[in-house]
Amino acid sequence: MESPVNHPSDDSFDMYGDTLREECGVFGILGHPDAPTLTALGLHALQHRGQEAAGIVTFDGRQFHSERQLGLVGDHFTDPATLKRIPGHMAMGHVRYSTTGETILRNVQPLFAELEVGGIAIAHNGNLTNGLTLRRKLIAQGAICQSTSDTEVILHLIARSQRTSSSDRFVDAIGAVEGAYAMVAMTRTKLIGARDPNGIRPLVLGDLDGKPIFASETCALDIIGAKFVRDVENGEVIVCEIQADGTVTIESHHPFQPRKERICLFEYVYFARPDSVVAGRSVYAARKHMGINLAKEAPVEADVVVPVPDGGTPAAIGYAQASGIPFELGIIRNHYVGRTFIEPTQSIRAFGVKLKHSANRAEIAGKRVVLIDDSIVRGTTSLKIVQMIREAGASEVHIRVASPMIYFSDYYGIDTPDPEKLLANQHKDLASMCKFIGADSLQFLSIDGLYDAVGGEPRDNKAPQFTDHYFTGDYPTQLTDLNGRSKNEPKQISLLREAG
Amino acid sequence: MESPVNHPSDDSFDMYGDTLREECGVFGILGHPDAPTLTALGLHALQHRGQEAAGIVTFDGRQFHSERQLGLVGDHFTDPATLKRIPGHMAMGHVRYSTTGETILRNVQPLFAELEVGGIAIAHNGNLTNGLTLRRKLIAQGAICQSTSDTEVILHLIARSQRTSSSDRFVDAIGAVEGAYAMVAMTRTKLIGARDPNGIRPLVLGDLDGKPIFASETCALDIIGAKFVRDVENGEVIVCEIQADGTVTIESHHPFQPRKERICLFEYVYFARPDSVVAGRSVYAARKHMGINLAKEAPVEADVVVPVPDGGTPAAIGYAQASGIPFELGIIRNHYVGRTFIEPTQSIRAFGVKLKHSANRAEIAGKRVVLIDDSIVRGTTSLKIVQMIREAGASEVHIRVASPMIYFSDYYGIDTPDPEKLLANQHKDLASMCKFIGADSLQFLSIDGLYDAVGGEPRDNKAPQFTDHYFTGDYPTQLTDLNGRSKNEPKQISLLREAG
Amino acid sequence: MESPVNHPSDDSFDMYGDTLREECGVFGILGHPDAPTLTALGLHALQHRGQEAAGIVTFDGRQFHSERQLGLVGDHFTDPATLKRIPGHMAMGHVRYSTTGETILRNVQPLFAELEVGGIAIAHNGNLTNGLTLRRKLIAQGAICQSTSDTEVILHLIARSQRTSSSDRFVDAIGAVEGAYAMVAMTRTKLIGARDPNGIRPLVLGDLDGKPIFASETCALDIIGAKFVRDVENGEVIVCEIQADGTVTIESHHPFQPRKERICLFEYVYFARPDSVVAGRSVYAARKHMGINLAKEAPVEADVVVPVPDGGTPAAIGYAQASGIPFELGIIRNHYVGRTFIEPTQSIRAFGVKLKHSANRAEIAGKRVVLIDDSIVRGTTSLKIVQMIREAGASEVHIRVASPMIYFSDYYGIDTPDPEKLLANQHKDLASMCKFIGADSLQFLSIDGLYDAVGGEPRDNKAPQFTDHYFTGDYPTQLTDLNGRSKNEPKQISLLREAG
Amino acid sequence: MESPVNHPSDDSFDMYGDTLREECGVFGILGHPDAPTLTALGLHALQHRGQEAAGIVTFDGRQFHSERQLGLVGDHFTDPATLKRIPGHMAMGHVRYSTTGETILRNVQPLFAELEVGGIAIAHNGNLTNGLTLRRKLIAQGAICQSTSDTEVILHLIARSQRTSSSDRFVDAIGAVEGAYAMVAMTRTKLIGARDPNGIRPLVLGDLDGKPIFASETCALDIIGAKFVRDVENGEVIVCEIQADGTVTIESHHPFQPRKERICLFEYVYFARPDSVVAGRSVYAARKHMGINLAKEAPVEADVVVPVPDGGTPAAIGYAQASGIPFELGIIRNHYVGRTFIEPTQSIRAFGVKLKHSANRAEIAGKRVVLIDDSIVRGTTSLKIVQMIREAGASEVHIRVASPMIYFSDYYGIDTPDPEKLLANQHKDLASMCKFIGADSLQFLSIDGLYDAVGGEPRDNKAPQFTDHYFTGDYPTQLTDLNGRSKNEPKQISLLREAG
Repeated sequence: MESPVNHPSDDSFDMYGDTLREECGVFGILGHPDAPTLTALGLHALQHRGQEAAGIVTFDGRQFHSERQLGLVGDHFTDPATLKRIPGHMAMGHVRYSTTGETILRNVQPLFAELEVGGIAIAHNGNLTNGLTLRRKLIAQGAICQSTSDTEVILHLIARSQRTSSSDRFVDAIGAVEGAYAMVAMTRTKLIGARDPNGIRPLVLGDLDGKPIFASETCALDIIGAKFVRDVENGEVIVCEIQADGTVTIESHHPFQPRKERICLFEYVYFARPDSVVAGRSVYAARKHMGINLAKEAPVEADVVVPVPDGGTPAAIGYAQASGIPFELGIIRNHYVGRTFIEPTQSIRAFGVKLKHSANRAEIAGKRVVLIDDSIVRGTTSLKIVQMIREAGASEVHIRVASPMIYFSDYYGIDTPDPEKLLANQHKDLASMCKFIGADSLQFLSIDGLYDAVGGEPRDNKAPQFTDHYFTGDYPTQLTDLNGRSKNEPKQISLLREAG
Repeated sequence: MESPVNHPSDDSFDMYGDTLREECGVFGILGHPDAPTLTALGLHALQHRGQEAAGIVTFDGRQFHSERQLGLVGDHFTDPATLKRIPGHMAMGHVRYSTTGETILRNVQPLFAELEVGGIAIAHNGNLTNGLTLRRKLIAQGAICQSTSDTEVILHLIARSQRTSSSDRFVDAIGAVEGAYAMVAMTRTKLIGARDPNGIRPLVLGDLDGKPIFASETCALDIIGAKFVRDVENGEVIVCEIQADGTVTIESHHPFQPRKERICLFEYVYFARPDSVVAGRSVYAARKHMGINLAKEAPVEADVVVPVPDGGTPAAIGYAQASGIPFELGIIRNHYVGRTFIEPTQSIRAFGVKLKHSANRAEIAGKRVVLIDDSIVRGTTSLKIVQMIREAGASEVHIRVASPMIYFSDYYGIDTPDPEKLLANQHKDLASMCKFIGADSLQFLSIDGLYDAVGGEPRDNKAPQFTDHYFTGDYPTQLTDLNGRSKNEPKQISLLREAG
Repeated sequence: MESPVNHPSDDSFDMYGDTLREECGVFGILGHPDAPTLTALGLHALQHRGQEAAGIVTFDGRQFHSERQLGLVGDHFTDPATLKRIPGHMAMGHVRYSTTGETILRNVQPLFAELEVGGIAIAHNGNLTNGLTLRRKLIAQGAICQSTSDTEVILHLIARSQRTSSSDRFVDAIGAVEGAYAMVAMTRTKLIGARDPNGIRPLVLGDLDGKPIFASETCALDIIGAKFVRDVENGEVIVCEIQADGTVTIESHHPFQPRKERICLFEYVYFARPDSVVAGRSVYAARKHMGINLAKEAPVEADVVVPVPDGGTPAAIGYAQASGIPFELGIIRNHYVGRTFIEPTQSIRAFGVKLKHSANRAEIAGKRVVLIDDSIVRGTTSLKIVQMIREAGASEVHIRVASPMIYFSDYYGIDTPDPEKLLANQHKDLASMCKFIGADSLQFLSIDGLYDAVGGEPRDNKAPQFTDHYFTGDYPTQLTDLNGRSKNEPKQISLLREAG
Repeated sequence: MESPVNHPSDDSFDMYGDTLREECGVFGILGHPDAPTLTALGLHALQHRGQEAAGIVTFDGRQFHSERQLGLVGDHFTDPATLKRIPGHMAMGHVRYSTTGETILRNVQPLFAELEVGGIAIAHNGNLTNGLTLRRKLIAQGAICQSTSDTEVILHLIARSQRTSSSDRFVDAIGAVEGAYAMVAMTRTKLIGARDPNGIRPLVLGDLDGKPIFASETCALDIIGAKFVRDVENGEVIVCEIQADGTVTIESHHPFQPRKERICLFEYVYFARPDSVVAGRSVYAARKHMGINLAKEAPVEADVVVPVPDGGTPAAIGYAQASGIPFELGIIRNHYVGRTFIEPTQSIRAFGVKLKHSANRAEIAGKRVVLIDDSIVRGTTSLKIVQMIREAGASEVHIRVASPMIYFSDYYGIDTPDPEKLLANQHKDLASMCKFIGADSLQFLSIDGLYDAVGGEPRDNKAPQFTDHYFTGDYPTQLTDLNGRSKNEPKQISLLREAG
C-alpha cells in the first residue's frame, strides 16, 4: 500500500502545528444516475474540511461499492477507472482530517456494516464526548472494533439495535451518543441526514432535479448547480427513501428533546468556505463584519491594511473599508507546494513561513502595517510573519485578530493543541503576548463583537446563541470520556498499530 | 492504495485457470528477540503456499503491531523500514492465496481483535464448511464483519465467548466450527497452535534456542536453523506461554473426541515443498515413489522421460529410475516473469505455455517422450504442452500423471474449478481425455498406488488414512454451508465491494 | 518510469487551453556550502514560472550530480534522500513548462555535456528563433541531439567551439543564436549568467554571504534572505569564478553590439510574481497601476469590483481605489486540486470553471459587478465565469481587462495558442467579443495605458521600451525558423517519440 | 521517475557478488504487423541475458517510438498501454545487465540518433576494448555523450561518417571499433545485424512468415514460432531492407578480413539458455557432455549426484548417467523472491544461501554427495552450499565443476570480479581451494574436456576454436583501453552522476 502521502494543502503545510483542523465534511445524494460523480464533486467543494483522506460508498441496486483513499478527492475520485468501480444511483462520501495524527485507511470513512436487515454506510463530521466509554462497553459485549474512530461506535450501536427498520436502528444509536455530529447514513433504499441536538456541526438539505442531497456546506450544492432547500435542524433526523416507482419520499423526525441551536462559531471564523451560507448567514459577510467590528473596537493609525492570506482577507477588507486605510496584498502566498515540502528537512524548516508566504516588499517598506489574521492559536506563525514583515522594511506592525483569544480545548471535532500551548495561556496579559509576537500592538475582537458580526446581537450569556467554549469554557454537552478518565490513564483507544 | 500487483510466481502465471491453489501458510514464534525477522523468513520459506498477500502481527510488550501487504513476503517484509514498524519478541504471520479471487487488504491475515481481556491475532490455513452459516448467525446478533474471510467468524466467536482466558475462548470458538484449519493465534503472552480434528492441513512445532515455533511445513524451520520437535496432532491445541521470568511453558490440549488423522493427500501430490517432511514423510521421497509406482502401473516404451517442471520432476526421476529410460530436461522453464505477463494481452495470450515453458528441441526431436506431470485439473495446459512437444519434433508423446483423476471439489482450502470443468468430468473415458489432450497415451496413478507411495499401504476403505475426496468423493466432515444453501441462493458473503 | 503526473497548479488546471504559459525559471549559486538546498528553495520561489518539471545540477569538487524530475520542486527536491544525491558547493537549477505539450525527462533541464575541457551544465528561460535552423546544421555535421529542446543546440555549439576556456565557448555559442534567453551555465569553477541582447527575459544577480546568485526573479532571493545586487543587463554575460583560495571573482562581459533593453511586458501583466521587482519595477505596483489606468480609461457604474483570482487581484484593488467602487472577493478559488482533476472526465468537465472557482453569491446577487482580469487569451474561461456570475444573481456584469487585446503569437518562450484561436482574431470588433463572452460591457487597457502603468510613459513607437509583439506584431528579433519554413513543412523537430 | 527497482531474478539475488553477468540480449524484426509484440516476446525469451532494464524502438512509417524501462520485460512491455505507445511494422529491442553497476535510464538501449539521412537505433551485446579511447577522441571533436555506455560511441561514429547510406555509415563505424559485438541496428527501411570479426557474441538470423529476424539466441525464435535460418557469421553484416512494394531484400556483407570464428565458451558453460542452439551446438547437450567428461576425468565414489540448481543440472544429469550414481534433487530452490530480499538487511543476510536454496534433507542425510556446479567464481557461494549440505547430514561432500578454473578478467561483456578476488587466484593449489570451500574433494573440468564437450575435439593451441581467455589469458583482440590507461588514471567515463 502506498505510504500515506500528505497533499499540497494549506493546513498540511503547517510545520509549526499552529492551525486548527476540522475533522470532516459529508455529502450524500439519493436517486440520481450520476450520484457517484456528483458526490466526488461535492466532496471536492468540501475539501477544505479535510485533506488527508476521502471515501465514497455507492449502492447500485444490488451491491454496495466502497472506495477509500488517502489524499485529495481530486487525486483519485474523478479518475474514470475509480468512478467505474463505484457505480450506483445513490452515493455518499466523506473527507477527513485526522484529529489523532494517525490517518490510516481503516479509519477512513464512510464506514460500512452488513446488518441482518441489509447494509448500512455512515459518515460523520464531529466528535463524540462519550465515544470511548461506549467503545469499552461494546468490547466487553464481544464487539470487534476495526477502526479507532468513534464513528465505528455508532455503527456497532446500529448493528446491535433490536429495531427492525434501519432508520429506527439509526435513531436508537444516536440516542446513546453525546457530542457533535452531522451525519449521513445510507441503506439500500434510504439516505439519512442528522444533526446533534445542539447542531454544533452544520448540515444542509439540497435538491438537484428533484433528488435530495445532504452536504456539510452550501458550496457543495453550488458546484453541482443544486438548490439549497434548508438547513437540517439541530436534533433533526431526515429520512429520504426511494420508492419502488423511483419517486423519493422525505420524512423529518425529531427524536430528541427540543433545544435551541448552538452552531460552532469557528465555522464562521475559520472553517467554512467564505462562499457558503451557514445557518442562514453568509460566511464571507460574517468575516467582513468581524473586520468592521474589529476596526471599531481596535483602531490604529496606519498606512496599509494587509491580510494574512487567505484566512484574514475578508476581515481585512472589512477593516480597510471601516477604517479608510488602504487594503493591499502585502503578503503573497505560494500555492505550489509539493510532497517533500510537507515534511521539510531541518535545513529548510529554518526558512519557515517563507516557504508559503513572502512579503510584498514594495507595499510594506517604510509603512505602518496593520496585519489582519482570522485567529491566533499558538502564535508561532504570527511571530514569523511579523519578523518577515519587519525584514521587508515595515516601520510599524500592528496585529488585529478577527476573533477572541482561545483558552480551551475543543472536543467536538476541532483538533486543538494542548491548552497549555495556546498563546492565551502562555502569557499573563496582552502586552506579554504582543511582546512574544514582536508586534507594535496586538488586539483581539471581543466575544460580543464576534457574536454581533455573525448573529447581529451580543452574546446571551444565559442561553448563548452559539457554541463558543474555546473562548469561554462553556461546553454545550457533557464530557463523559474526559471526566471518566483517571488522571494517568492513557488516552490510547487501540492496542494495535497498523501500517497502511 | 497501490493497485493489487500480482507477482511473478508459478501460480499467478496461470492464464488458463488450470492449477489448484492452496489458501495459506502460517508461522509463529514466541519469546525470541528477532521474532519479526524470523517470521519474515519463515513466511518466505512458505511462500509457495500463497503468493497474493502476506501479513505479520507482533507484540512488543506494550502494543501489537500489524503489517499486511499484497505481494510477496520478499517485496516488503525484509525492508528495514517495515521491520522497524513491527517490533516485538513475539510474532506470527500468514501468506495467502485467495480462494475467492478477490484479494483485498481487509482480507489479508493475521486478523486482529481487541477483547476485553486484551488483543488477539489469528491466522488460518484451511477453510470452514460452516463458516457462512455461523456468519449469518453472528450478524443477526449484531456482529459487524469487516472481511469476507471465514477466519473472521472465528474471531467473533472468540470475542463473544464468556470464558475468561483467551485460550479458553479460543477453544470455545474452534469447538463451534467445522472444516479444515491449521491455526496460529497470539495474545499478549501466548502463542497457540491448533489443527482440526481430522488434521486436514499440516502444522508443526519447532524450536529455536529453546523458543517454540509453529509453522505449516518443516521448510520454514530449516530456513532459520530451527529444530523440528513434532507435528501438532489432529485435534490438538498447543498453548505456549511466556512467563513473568521470561521462560516459556508449553501445554497440550485435546478438547475434541479423538479421531484418526486424515491429512490431505494433495499436500504430497502438489502443495508442500519437496524438502518438507509432512506428517513424518519426506514429500520428495513420496513424489519420487509416486513416479516409481506409476512406472510399474503404466509402463511405456520410450526414449526419454521428461518432467513437466517443476511439479513433475521428482516423479519423473522416480519413473526414469524404475523404468531405466533416461531422464532429460526436455522442457525448460522461464522464471523471469513480470507484472504485465501475469495478465497478458490477447495477442500474447496466444503464445500460451511458451511464455513460461519452452521445448528443449535437441532432446525431443525424433524421440518417443514420456511426459510426467503431478496432476491434471482441466487439461488445458497439458494440451498446450503436448502441442509444443510435438512441434519440437517428438515422434510419440505419452502422458503419465502421478496422481489419480480429480472428480470432486474441495471445501477445505484448495481452490478447485467447478466440477463440470474438470477433465475427468468432461470425458466419458480415458481414451476421450487422451484424444482431447492430443497424446499418444495417457495414464493416471491409481488411488492405491498413491496411498502406497505416501503411506506404504493401500487405501483402507473403511477408515481411509488420508483426506482424498477430490479423487473419491469421500468428504471427511459435514458440509453444512453447502447443504444448507438453497438452489438459487447466491454464494455472496458480502454486500460490499471494496477497492483496495 | 512514472507516468508524467501533472500537478496541482493553477495553469495545469487549464481545461480549456485558455492561459498563457511561460517556459522556465532559472537559478544558480556559487561557493555556498548549502548550494543544493538553496537552489531547491530558489526554484520553489520560481515555481510559478513552470510546474511540469524541475532539475538541479551540482558540482562537489570532483563530480557533477544531476537530478531531474517531473512534478513540482516540492515533490522531490527537499527530500533528504534527494538532496543527499546532489551534494556540492555550487548548484544550478531550472523549472519548466513545456511549450510543446510533450514534457519528457530528456527535455528537463539543466542539460549537461562533458567537454574536453570538463563538464558544463546549462539552463535556459526563453526560446530561440533560429534553433531549428541551427539544429539542422549541427545534425548535418554529425551531432546527435537527445532532447527536442533548443537549449541543447546551445550545448552543441559550446561543445564544438574551438576556444579553450569554457566561458569563451559559451560566448561563442550565444553569439550564434537569436531569440530570447536568460541563461545560467556552470562549469567546475564558474557560474555564468547571461541575457539576450534585447533582455526579453529577466535575470537578476544576488548575493548571499558574499556568494553570487543568479535568479529569474527577486522573489527567489527573498526566500533565502539573499540581497538583490542588480539586474543582469541585456546582452551582458557575467562570469563568476571560484578561485583556488575559495574567493569568488565576478567579471562582466558585453560581447554584443549595445542595444536598448526591451523586456517582455507579459512579465508584468501575468508571469512574474507580484512581490518580485523586475527591471527595477515592482510587479504588484505595476499591476495595481494597470487597474488605476483601466479605471480611468474604462469607467463603469457598478456596485462592486470583483477580481478574477488570483491574476486579476492587484489590478482590481487599483480599479477599486481609483473608482471608489468597493472591492470584494466575489469569486472564491478552490486551491485543492488533485491529480485526476487535471484531466477531468467528460462528465466532470461539464462543471467547468466551478471546479476551481465559485461565485460568492452573497456579494454578487442583485449587484452590478465589474470583473477585473489580467488578460484574455481565447475568451473561453471568461465566458464560463460570466455565466457563473450571472447564475449567482448579478444584475450586470462588466469585464475590464488590465492589458490590451492579444493578436500575435510569441516565439520567445510563451506558449500562445494559434493566432486564429485568439479572441481578438475571432471577432471583428469589441461588441462581437463582448457578446461572445456574454458580458454587459467589455473594455481592454490601451497599449499606452499599459506602458504608462509599467514604465511611467507612453509607448515610444520608434524605439519601444518593451517587448510587446503579442499586442502589436512588432517582434524584437528576426524569426529565422519561422521564415525559413516552407508552408507545408511539419514543425516536427524529432523523429522519435519517447515515453518517459 | 520510479526508483530503480531490481527484480526477482536469479542473478539479482546474488548477495555475495559471486556470479558472472552477461551484458545483453538483442532482437529485431522487419516488416511484420505485430513487430512490437513479437519483439517483447523475443526479449522475454532472452531475459536470462539481462534483467536490469529493457527497451524497444519501433518505426511506424512516419515516426520512431522508443520505450525504455528498468525492470523485466514482463513488467512493462506486454501492457497494452505500453504496446500502444510503440506501434510499427519494424521493431528492435534490448535487455541489459549493467557491467558498471550503475543502471540508469540514459544507458538503457536501444540508443537512437537522428542523422541527416534519417533516424537510426542500435542495440549491442558485447563490449568494446577501445571504447574509452574513441570516446575521448569524439569529445575532443565536440561530440556530446549522453550515456556512459560504449554503444553510444558507435552511434557517434555513424553520425559523423561522411557516407550517404546509413548501412555504409554503420560499416564505417564498426570498422573503427575493437572488441565484441553482436549488434542490431534499425533505420526507416533497414534492419541490420552484425557480429564482430571473432564472433565472440552469438547472433542468429530467423524467419517468421517470410520476415527476417535477428536474435541473440534461438530460444527467441522458438517462443514466437519463427524458423531458424542460420547464424550470422563472424565479421558479417546482414542488411535487410523493406522495399516500396513491401517485399524484403536481404544482403550479406563481409567488410573485414576473414578470420576463424571464436565464440565465447561461457555461452555454453553458463549464459545461453539450455534449449538454445548456439553456433550449431545444443547448449543442453554441451552441458550434459561437460558432465559426462567430468565423470571420466574426476570420478568419485558416492551415493548421490546433486546439482546446484539451476546451472548445474544438465551437467549433473550427464555425470549421473556416466557414473551410474543416482541423480537426485538434493537442493531445492525458492523461486519466490521479492524486492526487499534483493538488498537484504544485515540480519537476514546471515541466512545466506538459504534464502534461495534449501537442502532436501531426506535425500542427503547420511549420504556421500557429489555436488555439480557449472563454474566457480569467487567460491563464496560454494562455501555456503557445502555448509548447508553438511548441516543436512551428508557424510561426504565432493564438488565437481563442469568448467576449468577462472583466472582472468573478461573485457567483452561479462562482468567479472577483480582477478585477485577469483577463487583460483586466492589459493596456491586445488587443496587450498578445497579446504576453503570445506569440501571433501574438489575437481574442475579440464580445458580440453570442455573443448571436447562443446566442439568434439581438444583445444587447438595454435588457433583456438573458442574464446577462452578467462581460463587461459589468451585474449582474442587487442585491449587498447586497458593498455593505454596509465596506472593511476581513474576508470571514470563520466563526470556526471545522474539519478534516474
